[in-house]
Parts: sequence; C-alpha cells; structure tokens
Amino acid sequence: MQDQPEVAAVLEANAAFYRAFGALDIDQMSAIWSRDDSIRCVHPGWPLLTGREPVIDSWAGIFNNAAVMQFDIVDVEVTLEADFAWVVCTERLTSVQGGQVAEGRVQTTNLFRKEAGQWLIVHHHGSPLMTRG
Amino acid sequence: MQDQPEVAAVLEANAAFYRAFGALDIDQMSAIWSRDDSIRCVHPGWPLLTGREPVIDSWAGIFNNAAVMQFDIVDVEVTLEADFAWVVCTERLTSVQGGQVAEGRVQTTNLFRKEAGQWLIVHHHGSPLMTRG
Repeated sequence: MQDQPEVAAVLEANAAFYRAFGALDIDQMSAIWSRDDSIRCVHPGWPLLTGREPVIDSWAGIFNNAAVMQFDIVDVEVTLEADFAWVVCTERLTSVQGGQVAEGRVQTTNLFRKEAGQWLIVHHHGSPLMTRG
Repeated sequence: MQDQPEVAAVLEANAAFYRAFGALDIDQMSAIWSRDDSIRCVHPGWPLLTGREPVIDSWAGIFNNAAVMQFDIVDVEVTLEADFAWVVCTERLTSVQGGQVAEGRVQTTNLFRKEAGQWLIVHHHGSPLMTRG
C-alpha cells in the first residue's frame, strides 16, 4: 500500500508538468524541474540531454516552434521510493508545428525527487509509440 | 559526491542486464529483475508492460526471435537516490532477427532498487534514437 497523500502529490507534480507543456509556458516548465544540474531529458527520438541549461533550453525551443500542444494523459502509474518517485504514462497529443497538425502517442517515464517538501522532475523520457490502441 | 561503491554496484547490475540481453539468456534476465509485480518495461516502440509475467515473457519472446544481439553500451550515467538508482545509457546494437541484420541505437532509462542488499531492475525504457552520431 502506497502513501496516498504522497502519491497524490506526485500525480499533481506530473499534472503540473503537462499543464506547463500544454500552455507552452517556459516559466512554469522551468519551475517544475529540479535546480539540480544532474537533471536529464530525452525527447522522442532525441539523444539524451543532461544539465539544467540544456534541458530548459530544449523546452524553450520546442515551445517557440509549437503553436498548439494539446494533451490527453492516460494510463498513469506511480511508484513511490521514499523521497523519489517514478511515473509512467501515455501522452495522446495533438500539436501544431510549422502549420502542420500532428497527432501521436508518446510513452513516457517521468522521475521526481522530493526536494524541500516539493516534488520536482529530475528526468523525462518520452518515446514514440508505434502501435495503435 | 556519490557513494562510489554503490555506484559501482549499480553499474554492475546494469552491465549484468546487458550481459543477459546479449546472451539471450532468459534465466539470467529473469534473475536481474525485481520479483515485485510492479516492475515495468517499455521496449522500443512498444506500449508499456506492467507486472512480472508480462515483462519476463516479453524478453523470452524477444530472445526466441533473435539469433544474435550484440551491444556496445555507451554514455552511461548513474544517479543514486538512497536505495534507488536511475541509469541512462545508449545501446549501440547489432541484431539478427528472422535472418535480417539490423543496426540501431536505443536511448535507455533503467531504474534499479536495492532489495535485500542486491540491486535489481524495476523499470526499463528503451526508445529508438533517430539522429546519427
């Protein structure tokens, strides 16, 4: 049995991540990431990014090139590991980039660490889902 | 500064995972995974698998269909979180499946938990890397 208030807090952090993503709001996105320079990020098809500046800059670049980013986040599963948590979920997304509408599904692993009472993301790994469903 | 003996132990667990994978040895692969039924796995392009039986069965299926699986594991980064650890690495792999040779790169996140003194894998997320390098 997992600690339900903590699970809820992690789910809220995960939801805040996708709210920032959907709002294309770099300040919100920056705030939900840990300040630790060991943060990492794998966007679908991209190589690994390590460090606060490369990770936040990558989001700024994505947001600057997207007109619309709509998410439906499904199949969310959370596992708590003391002050660490890992979340898996599927992003059903519709985006408009360079005037082109794209729909797709991304399978995601998000890692969170509780720092000074706040759950912050330390790693995001999104990958294209190739089967339909 | 991370705990170097623990980092070494996680790296060894990660290496054991890839030895089992390269040997196409389901017993070795089964042994390196946690017995916990919350284990999860995302093979490149696949949807999420959750639970010990679906995860181990998926490896058995991959091993049964592969004649050769050769790995070069590069850019390994480890972060310890008490009795939990996350590893990112890139798999440069050559496989032979159904008589076809395939080469590719997979960007991977592996999560490990220390259980009864042993680091065991609880989540594997591999995704196709689309850029060259």
